[in-house]
Parts: sequence; structure tokens; C-alpha cells
Amino acid sequence: MKESRMHIGLVGLGKMGGNMRTRLREAGHTVVGYDRNPDLADVASLAEMVEALPSPKVVWVMVPAGDPTRSTIAELKELLGEGDLVVDGGNSKYTDDAKNAESLSEKGIGFVDCGVSGGVWGLQNGYALMYGGSEEDAAKVMPAFEALKPSGTEDGLVHCGTTPGAGHFSKMVHNGIEYAMMQAYAEGWELLDKVDIVDNVPEIFASWRTGTVVRSWLLDLLVDQLRADEHLDKIKGYADDSGEGRWTVEAAIENAVPMPAISASLFARFVSRQEDDHAMKAIAAMRNGFGGHAVISESEA
Amino acid sequence: MKESRMHIGLVGLGKMGGNMRTRLREAGHTVVGYDRNPDLADVASLAEMVEALPSPKVVWVMVPAGDPTRSTIAELKELLGEGDLVVDGGNSKYTDDAKNAESLSEKGIGFVDCGVSGGVWGLQNGYALMYGGSEEDAAKVMPAFEALKPSGTEDGLVHCGTTPGAGHFSKMVHNGIEYAMMQAYAEGWELLDKVDIVDNVPEIFASWRTGTVVRSWLLDLLVDQLRADEHLDKIKGYADDSGEGRWTVEAAIENAVPMPAISASLFARFVSRQEDDHAMKAIAAMRNGFGGHAVISESEA
Amino acid sequence: MKESRMHIGLVGLGKMGGNMRTRLREAGHTVVGYDRNPDLADVASLAEMVEALPSPKVVWVMVPAGDPTRSTIAELKELLGEGDLVVDGGNSKYTDDAKNAESLSEKGIGFVDCGVSGGVWGLQNGYALMYGGSEEDAAKVMPAFEALKPSGTEDGLVHCGTTPGAGHFSKMVHNGIEYAMMQAYAEGWELLDKVDIVDNVPEIFASWRTGTVVRSWLLDLLVDQLRADEHLDKIKGYADDSGEGRWTVEAAIENAVPMPAISASLFARFVSRQEDDHAMKAIAAMRNGFGGHAVISESEA
Amino acid sequence: MKESRMHIGLVGLGKMGGNMRTRLREAGHTVVGYDRNPDLADVASLAEMVEALPSPKVVWVMVPAGDPTRSTIAELKELLGEGDLVVDGGNSKYTDDAKNAESLSEKGIGFVDCGVSGGVWGLQNGYALMYGGSEEDAAKVMPAFEALKPSGTEDGLVHCGTTPGAGHFSKMVHNGIEYAMMQAYAEGWELLDKVDIVDNVPEIFASWRTGTVVRSWLLDLLVDQLRADEHLDKIKGYADDSGEGRWTVEAAIENAVPMPAISASLFARFVSRQEDDHAMKAIAAMRNGFGGHAVISESEA
Repeated sequence: MKESRMHIGLVGLGKMGGNMRTRLREAGHTVVGYDRNPDLADVASLAEMVEALPSPKVVWVMVPAGDPTRSTIAELKELLGEGDLVVDGGNSKYTDDAKNAESLSEKGIGFVDCGVSGGVWGLQNGYALMYGGSEEDAAKVMPAFEALKPSGTEDGLVHCGTTPGAGHFSKMVHNGIEYAMMQAYAEGWELLDKVDIVDNVPEIFASWRTGTVVRSWLLDLLVDQLRADEHLDKIKGYADDSGEGRWTVEAAIENAVPMPAISASLFARFVSRQEDDHAMKAIAAMRNGFGGHAVISESEA
Repeated sequence: MKESRMHIGLVGLGKMGGNMRTRLREAGHTVVGYDRNPDLADVASLAEMVEALPSPKVVWVMVPAGDPTRSTIAELKELLGEGDLVVDGGNSKYTDDAKNAESLSEKGIGFVDCGVSGGVWGLQNGYALMYGGSEEDAAKVMPAFEALKPSGTEDGLVHCGTTPGAGHFSKMVHNGIEYAMMQAYAEGWELLDKVDIVDNVPEIFASWRTGTVVRSWLLDLLVDQLRADEHLDKIKGYADDSGEGRWTVEAAIENAVPMPAISASLFARFVSRQEDDHAMKAIAAMRNGFGGHAVISESEA
Repeated sequence: MKESRMHIGLVGLGKMGGNMRTRLREAGHTVVGYDRNPDLADVASLAEMVEALPSPKVVWVMVPAGDPTRSTIAELKELLGEGDLVVDGGNSKYTDDAKNAESLSEKGIGFVDCGVSGGVWGLQNGYALMYGGSEEDAAKVMPAFEALKPSGTEDGLVHCGTTPGAGHFSKMVHNGIEYAMMQAYAEGWELLDKVDIVDNVPEIFASWRTGTVVRSWLLDLLVDQLRADEHLDKIKGYADDSGEGRWTVEAAIENAVPMPAISASLFARFVSRQEDDHAMKAIAAMRNGFGGHAVISESEA
Repeated sequence: MKESRMHIGLVGLGKMGGNMRTRLREAGHTVVGYDRNPDLADVASLAEMVEALPSPKVVWVMVPAGDPTRSTIAELKELLGEGDLVVDGGNSKYTDDAKNAESLSEKGIGFVDCGVSGGVWGLQNGYALMYGGSEEDAAKVMPAFEALKPSGTEDGLVHCGTTPGAGHFSKMVHNGIEYAMMQAYAEGWELLDKVDIVDNVPEIFASWRTGTVVRSWLLDLLVDQLRADEHLDKIKGYADDSGEGRWTVEAAIENAVPMPAISASLFARFVSRQEDDHAMKAIAAMRNGFGGHAVISESEA
């Protein structure tokens, strides 16, 4: 199957989608790409894209999670038919997948959800793919999976379950783990960066890349940044969060799974985005109340 | 013993010490107060204070923890003798007490450590006292304890153990608990203050003062503050920490006691004092590394 | 309005509902109670209960959250009409309230959601009530509110907002705060109970009930338990969680509100219910991997 | 310098020390090993070991942290002299290093502290070394460092600072980071292992080893364990902690560095070792207090 060539429609040609198109074409597949931005698109409409595909038609959706993905899949439901397949490769919440799968199944259209990791490194190194859906549906997109995944390894491609959402759920947890790993390095770095006893913190991190328990790809990334800006003076201490971290903690709560480190990592990001620490206002208020005046230190309370 | 009158030396006449002198005098005790600030002091020196006391001499030290307390006790060791008593009523770390007790015992001087809670409310309502030391030593200062504690209740005065430091240890844990209680209200308040679904948050908190599980003195304080400044706009989201919170977590770690809520409360205070979130710089740096460029969102990684 | 007498239907006569019926009747109101258990009920059916009420009919639903509440409200929708009112006094999730309110409004039936705190103490001391809904709807049930709330205080009854769910949302946050307050005491108690330096831990907690920053009703409860069983040897270290703690953290995540202490308290409960610590299996597994054999201590890694 | 051959004394020939002796000898160095167990030792006493070394004598101490290391260094102080060097390669707390360095300096003996990572893998792959001390002292042991570190890379050996303890401090933080990384994987694994939506969890983790953000050596270890025992049924959910995790959090607290994820990881280990969850007893006790009886659910409170 690795050797087979396939036609695939690809919706969403931003940085990720665009690079994926390139990697698919380099593997010999025929990609018909559609994007709302005509400068990026191969065709002028979803309809034209679908028209250009041989049956069974396979369309990979690579647009932002939520409404854009939902509306794209709704449109594709109109355009596709029995035996065709939609792959959602975006960052959809796993609970969306069951709804999309059921809706598409009304017309006999198959559905595979696929979490994709790799960022801009994926074009060259391959994307890690975690997918959910039936074996039969997965088989239809397998040549594309094989082209997109890292070559020369069995890693980087995994069937996470037959239930729609299994792939996105796995990718979601992957991101939750990522949050806490990043927080781990960040906490250690802050301590090392602040104490007088050690010098040369970037080189300490660099040394850890070989022979230690904490070696990882994230460590490699951090070393590059620290070597360029020792105390990270040029970087603001501010981090957004995508939905995956939140959903991971929510899924943990729903399943009574304790998740202290991942939730702490998520909350640390929330705090980093507050100009004034909101909860701490209430604590300062209570401390004022202790003494009638703010000048009374708590240790007297 | 409640009826007896005593003479007591009191070192440190700041807001706490000064009020305690007043409360002791109102109960009929004779207080000889010393402070480095001559405007506050009754006598010109520690020596003069000691001179003025009948034997067995009882001196209550109410100065800042650490070096000031240590040096005051060292001076008192020179001035006092067999059968006299030093009471450390400050916020000393419990580990200091064993050292002070041992040093004083070399001259037969007794030692009692006493954690004091009450703030500016203590003058009127009484101070909660938690003390450590031998029964024999405690008996010497008991009339003062009875005068300082809240009247009309058995609460507010407790012998925490005969080991020096038992009192300060208990007061330390009291403050650790306080940290997490305050954090509990603060987290709940932030959520209520931020959502659209509820109005009238100060009155919600006010209503909780009767009949609910969360009613407490801290809640009363918070209600007063919220009624004066609904969203606490005038209060900066910044909180110092005194040593007790840190020592509580350290003692927990030493004893393998999990302390997730109290430590979270302590760390929240640390974060509130950072102008730029330091650890988050490292996270932002790694996220930059994902994509080569900051413009790549993490959800693509 | 306080003086007015009203008729009210009450669905659900378990411990809470039964006590509320008693308190309402003691205030002079006429309560028609229905319960699936005929031994508790005043009438044989919901229909009979509705029949017995004068218009505008007011029915207070006090059954378990989720399906029982939803199906009861659906039945009442059939039985009630224009101008009548349903009060949900159970522990419903706030998101259910909007749905119930909208459904009832199709027939012109009003809706008030009301979080109720008080437990078995409520019969004697009154229940703390937090409600959401329109002023007009609330007016219809106000005499019952006045009877149920603690007397002699303005506390214990609050209008949290006009949006359906405002009351349950507030009660939910109240419970979230309660989780972290309990955790605060529990962490402090564990430390005090485990160290050698202090004796007499129950009396330390008892002493805190007057004059300290941590005095609260929860503290009072804990003191009673500690005095009966100093080390709580007879109590299993196991705690269930009702939905409110989970929903509070979920609402926090949805609103990007950091909630480290409340979430830690929730997770601590999850862990307490695991026979074998599940996550720790993975950590033990990795540690085995360090050395090839479990006998290698991590400090060598 | 890499090419030079040196003589070195090595105290402590357990699994770590024994393997290090082997690796040093394979690099051509002359190692005189001493252990209390005569079956492992090359010489019968520390004195004999010191006797066998040419000046400047270099002795590497590889015994358990705390008293064993302190007493070994005290003995070596008697045996060594001006210009000689002691290397502490064990897991000493960084605060011990200043004391040892100062004591040895009284006789002109140099001191280098060195954190060593690598476990049983170190013999083959090399040990990651983080050291503190003067350049002059470090130069005396550099040939051994070069032999022990991973070959073919600049990583795995770093001079962390000239202050005694810089090396152990860095290794300590490394272990703190390790705690939270392990916790991150463990939390994610527990969630994946518990939900129905995904199958094949070991292969999901395996797939992450290439192309993802969470790839790391720890992940590799975990995959091996999961492939052997899918749900880790054979492994008890119990994890010890070595001192480094505790010391990391203590150092963070001392420096006002927030460390929510690493502390959560430490506390999770503490909990895993409790037969009955101690703090949760207090929570269960308070919950009993709500209702007078344990049978009253909290949602009624």
C-alpha cells in the first residue's frame, strides 16, 4: 500500500496545510487543494475540488477547529456521497467527531479524525499522526498517511481506536502532556536563572541533551533559545493556550483522573496573561481587613 | 491564678507590642516596656527593664523574627538568671526555639515560645495564644496569658507541647491554613467576578455569612472590602508572604506530608509579585521553537 | 410580604425536602408534598399535588440533579400553565437551568433556580438560599424563601442574577470554595498530627475557634470530630465529590480563571478513592526503566 | 588533556561506583577503588588507597549522601594534603558542599562537587556530569571527567559555577524537572488508560517517539514498560522520592520561585505511599459533621 498513488482533496492551505500538500506531492500523490484565499488554492471552490477527485473521493480538512471545521464538513456532506471519506486533520475537540461522523454517515460518507503533530518541522521530518475510525475508512487514506508520517520508522502513525474522536483525543492528551513538560523545564529554569550559586545556565541545559533523564526534543528547542538570549530578556512571560490543554483537564475531571501537574501548567498560562493578578486582589483585600490598615504585616495577624 | 497580678517586661512596643501592653495593664498587670524607640519605651535599656522586675523575672520578647529576636534573647541571657523566664511571642521559626531554649538553660533561665494571633483586633477581643514549653515555665507567665487571651471562653489559649517550638510550629501551621483559606475565597471570587451569569457578587458573599458551610471570619473581612469596592479595582493584585507559609510547606516536605493547596496558595503569591512571569518566558521560548516563528500557533505543533 | 401565607407544592421529601416541608409549615405555609415513596408523600401523584394548589401555582422541586430533576420538570410543564412557577432547589448544574427555563417559558411558566445550603442543620437554623431568575418570578416564591432562610439576619438569601442558573452557579462556587477550605484544614491537620513537636492537636484546633484568622464553621465541625477521635483512626481517608466541585473547575477553565487550590482539592479526593494509585504506576514503570531493575534507586539516575 | 592518563582513588564501589571504575579503566586510567565491602575493594582501607596515589592525589567519593559522605570526607581530610583534591560525585545536598569545601581548604585540599546522571546506562553510554568548583581544581580531575562523560559530543559535561555546590544544585534541579516530566506522562497515561474512546494505549505512546513535541528518553522508557504490561497491572502505584525533589522545592520556596508542577509531582509521590489517605480523613470528618451522619451526601450541605 505504501507504493500506491492516490488523489486527495485538501481544504485549508495555511502554513500546516500548505506544507502537507508539498509533502504529499513529493511522495507522488495528486493533491487538489482548496483555500478561501485564491492565491493559495488550486481550485476555485469546494465543489470544483470534489469534482476533480476520482471515486471514492477522499477529502482532508485542515482548517481551524470549531465553526470553520463544522461548516466545511457540512458543505462536504452536500458534495460527497456513498463510499467517500472525510478526514478531519485539524485540532477539533474529540466530542465534535462523533457528531460529524454521524452526520456524514447519513449519506454513507466515511469519517476519520486525525491529530497531527509536527509544526513547521513536519514538512521535512514528517508529521506524527494519530487517527480514529474504522479500518475500512482508514484504508482509503492510508497512502496519504504513509506519505505524511516520518519515514524510516514505525513510529509517528497510530490507529487510536475505531470510535470517532479517538485520534483527536490522543492528540489532545499529547498536548496536555506537552504543557506539563514545558512547565517542568520552565520551573527548573526559573530557579537556576535566579540563584547565584550557578553560572552559565544555557550551557547547563545544553549539557543535559546527552546522557540525562530529562533529554527530549523540547529541551533541544529550549537550549537553542537560551543560547540566543541567556535570560530570555527579549521574550515576554506570556503564553496563550490552545483548546487542547483545557479539554485534557476537563476530560480528566469527567473521568475522575487526578491531573495536578497538567492543570497547574494550564493555570500558570492563565495567570501569565493577566495584567493584574485578579485573585490576589481578594487576598490583598482580606489582608487589609486583618489589621484595619494595609501597613500591618500579616505576621502580626 | 487568673486573679493574680504579675510584673512583666515587654520588649518591642510596635503596634502589636504596644497594644498588648495596654491589654495587660487593663487587666491590672504591671508592664515595664522597652523599645529601641525611646518615645515608646518605659525604660531606657533592657538592663533597666530587667532591673525593674521582681524575681522570678518574666520578659516577653515581641520583636521581629530572626536576628532581632536572636540578639535580644542573647542580651537577656546576660541580664537574667536562674529561675527567670523568657517568652518569645514573635513570629520566630520553630527551629530557632530549640536553640534559644538550650542557650538560656545554660544559665537556668526558662523559655516559652508563644505564637500570637489577633492583629489590631486583639486589643479589644483578645489574642489567640499557642505556646510551647514546660508546665513549670508556663505557670510563670500564665497570668499574662490569661489577660491577653479572649475572655469568656476556653478557646484562644493552648499548650501545644513541652518541646520548645511547639507553639510557633502550631501558629505557623495556622498561618499555612490561612493561606489556603484565603486562596479558596479568592479563586471563587475571581470566577464569580468574571462571569456574566451572576450579578451582585458582594451581596452573594455577604449572604454566605449565615447558614452556609463557608462562613468564617475571613469571609466577614472580605465582604466588608467587597462592599466598599465591588470589583476591588482599587486594590493591586499583589500579596507578600511572611515566613510562616514557606516554613509550613518546608515542614510538610520534610515530613512527607502532601500539601497541594497550601503550596499552591504560596506559589500564587510568588507569581503575583513578578512583573513579568519568569517561568512563562521559557514556555514562550519553547513555543517559538516549535514553529521557527512565534506566529505559528501551538495547536499546529 | 414576610407576613403572607402561601401554598406551595414540594416534590422530593428526602432528608432535605422533608425538613424543608417542616420548616415551611412551622412558618404557617401550606405545603403539599409529593414523593415517589408514598410513606413520605401528602398526595399520590404530581397531578394531585398540582390540583391541590391555588393559582398561581408554585412548585418547588427538590430531587437529585440530572435526569430526576429534568424529568420532574418535564412532567410539571404538562401540568402547570401560564403564570405558574417552578423552583429548582436541587443541585442542578447551572447549564441545565437555561434549558429548563426556556422549555417552561413555552407555556408561560416561570422558573427560578435556587441553590440551598444548610444540611440537617437547616431545619433549625435556616437554609442559605441563592437564587436566580426574574424579580417577578422570585416574588411568587418569596414567602417560602423568607420562611426557609435563617431568621433575624439579612444574610442567607440573595438574588444572584436574572439569568437562569445564576443561583446554582453561585451555590456551585460556594461548594468549590468549601472544597479548598476543607483541604486547607486537612493539610494543616495532617502535618500537625504527624510531627512529634506538638501534642494535643485536637485542643490546638479547638483553641483556634476564638481570636484567630482561621475561625470558621468548618473548624467548629472539625474540632467536634477530633475531640471524639484524636487521630481520626475510625474514619477512612476517602472522600466522594458531588458535581459542584468538578463544575466549578470546569467553569474556571472555560473562563481562563486560574484555580490551583480548588482543583488540587478536587484531585486529592479523586486520589483518595483509588485503591492503587494509577498514575504512580507509570512513574514506577519509568523508574524501573532507569536502571533496568527496580532495585536501582532514582538518585543514581 | 583528553589523551592524558591519570590515577584516581574511588570510594564506594556499588552499582554506580563499580561501573564508573570499569569505564575509567577502559579509558586507560588507573583506579584504586575502596569499599567497605572487601569483595568489591582493590585496597583494604582509605589510607591504603591514598597511599597508592601519586601527588596531586585525586579521590572521587561515590557513597550515599549525608552522613556517609560527610564522614568519608572527614577521613580523607586527615589523609590528604596541600594540592590534593576530593570530588564528591554522590547525591549530596548542595548546602553540604560549602561546608566540605571549607573544611578541606583548611589543609589546602581542593574540592569539586559533581552531580552524576546515567544510572546503569552510564557504563555503556557515558555519564552526564555537572560540576562546581574552581577551574584549577577541575583541571586535576578533567581526564576522569572526559572518560566518564558520553563520547562524541560536547554535551554531558558542564561547569556549573565556581561556588561549591553549583554542580549538585544543577543536578538537583535536573531531578526536579524529571519529577514533573514523569508526572506529565503519568497523568496523560492514566487518562488514556481509563477512557473507552481509545484503544491500544501502548502503541499510542510508541507512536509519539518520532515527530511529536513530547518525544524524550523518558517516553522511550515508558513505551518499553507499557509494551510489556499494557495496563501496568504488575506494577504497584507507589513511588519513593530521593532527596533531590524535596530540595528543589525547598530551594524554590527560599527563592520565591513558583513551582506548581514540580511540587505537585512530589506531593503525588507522598500520597502514593500512604496506606490510608491521611488528610482525607479530616475531610471525611468534616463532611460527617455537615449532616450529623455520614449518610448525608455533601450535595445536601
